[in-house]
Amino acid sequence: MKQSFDSFLKECRERVERQLEQCLPPRQNDSPLNAALRYTTLDQGKRIRPCLVYAAAHSLGPINSDTDHIASALELIHCYSLIHDDLPAMDDDDLRRGRPTCHIAYDEATAILAGDGLQALAFEQLTQLSHATATTALALVRELAQAAGVAGMVKGQAMDLFATGTRVDLDYLEAMHAHKTGDLIVASISMGAQSSGCAAADTLKNLRAYGRAIGLAFQVKDDILDSEGNTATLGKQAGADQLHNKSTYTSLLGDDGAKTMLAQLYEQALTALGQFDERADHLRSIADFIVSRDH
Amino acid sequence: MKQSFDSFLKECRERVERQLEQCLPPRQNDSPLNAALRYTTLDQGKRIRPCLVYAAAHSLGPINSDTDHIASALELIHCYSLIHDDLPAMDDDDLRRGRPTCHIAYDEATAILAGDGLQALAFEQLTQLSHATATTALALVRELAQAAGVAGMVKGQAMDLFATGTRVDLDYLEAMHAHKTGDLIVASISMGAQSSGCAAADTLKNLRAYGRAIGLAFQVKDDILDSEGNTATLGKQAGADQLHNKSTYTSLLGDDGAKTMLAQLYEQALTALGQFDERADHLRSIADFIVSRDH
Repeated sequence: MKQSFDSFLKECRERVERQLEQCLPPRQNDSPLNAALRYTTLDQGKRIRPCLVYAAAHSLGPINSDTDHIASALELIHCYSLIHDDLPAMDDDDLRRGRPTCHIAYDEATAILAGDGLQALAFEQLTQLSHATATTALALVRELAQAAGVAGMVKGQAMDLFATGTRVDLDYLEAMHAHKTGDLIVASISMGAQSSGCAAADTLKNLRAYGRAIGLAFQVKDDILDSEGNTATLGKQAGADQLHNKSTYTSLLGDDGAKTMLAQLYEQALTALGQFDERADHLRSIADFIVSRDH
Repeated sequence: MKQSFDSFLKECRERVERQLEQCLPPRQNDSPLNAALRYTTLDQGKRIRPCLVYAAAHSLGPINSDTDHIASALELIHCYSLIHDDLPAMDDDDLRRGRPTCHIAYDEATAILAGDGLQALAFEQLTQLSHATATTALALVRELAQAAGVAGMVKGQAMDLFATGTRVDLDYLEAMHAHKTGDLIVASISMGAQSSGCAAADTLKNLRAYGRAIGLAFQVKDDILDSEGNTATLGKQAGADQLHNKSTYTSLLGDDGAKTMLAQLYEQALTALGQFDERADHLRSIADFIVSRDH
């Protein structure tokens, strides 16, 4: 019997939660660092990147323990980036998912170190695969390093920083988000697919196209939610981007223009999955979820 | 003819400089991030970790391009840790090696991102080995992740943070430095040795013992220099540790006690190399250099 999307998401979240719990150092009374690592990672987040890892693996073959390690690696990178992104010198956010951010709950130094530690832990996860060959595992390390690094997520963050307080054009905004959030989303899908052990080059190419579309869609939707949202629903300061005078899709295109763009990206994502059978339905549902979510 | 130690160090520094230059993104007018990456990495530092990588490789077999990649990976991790360590929320240092630190030369946000990016770049370097098998390369990724991460360097930094303003005992200080600087030094030696392709388990065990001894010796010497030093010689604020009320070997043991400890560690380092032939002379010279340096 085909598993419902809700039941699939629940299983993904439980699996990655177990894996994260297992790979983090145990909480110790004397270590604020370990407490901070657990506080920021085991926070019942949406786990979108892990869900993408699992859904991509599922679209090609069975999910296995390698998929768990890859899912946790992607989530660890995401968590580290949130901690550093929230710091006073960066976005200066006090709240995240309705809770004090790491540097508020602990302190700035601990938050910097916790982020640094999570990044190393992410790479370590990829050295513990048991199904993949060492060659594949090493290729996954390279893919994660590139997606997270100075040509990927970090580059996007720097572009974001550079753009704050200035009005940038749509090309810049698109390149910025393609790096800032897109590269890690594409890596989630590509790396998850490779955990199936049967990802052909053209299959990966289509999955990456799907990833680029939903990655951008995710950001456009975020901007729409931020433009419309309120603190109660979002659990973070609504309109924070406007407050910091950042260019967004809604500020450049208007709310309606951003919604049109979102619909186009959704279509692109589904088109990229055109050759996939019903095993890719969870990927299709994730695209639905991204465009229709209210937080 | 046997290469002199000075000529060996010069060659090591030139090799790692070339490799770092090659792996960093090119300087672009529009990117403060790339400029910051180059400013903090290509700064003609002492390159102690790369020199250890090369010396360990040389003690067992020929240095090759894998050694260059490993040396740069270790230096990139070291550079990232310095950038983050210098931040206002951490040690709050304005000068490093006589130059403004990254967050002074650029800004805090760029410094946080530059450090994050260098860490990812370090792991990427290890995916580009051409002599080592994928299995060995993956083992090197694991070793670096563990040495740099929440059970290694980051743990040591957190222990340092936790100890600031309180008086800790010698056991705590030793464990703190074993993680904060020791783990990466041991990894430099062990990973360098593995680039030779012929590192047996007991050989690695001896090299790691050498590494633990010189790692600790390096810190004891740093404390002695800090206690005795002045700004002109060190290029950083002298007595900064005292200013921050940190426990040091000199504050716990006195200058003479610290010097006795340094001599003992030097002996331990040489003893660990007892079974090695003259190809390990550069490792012996590095031990000499660490205990006798004046900055």
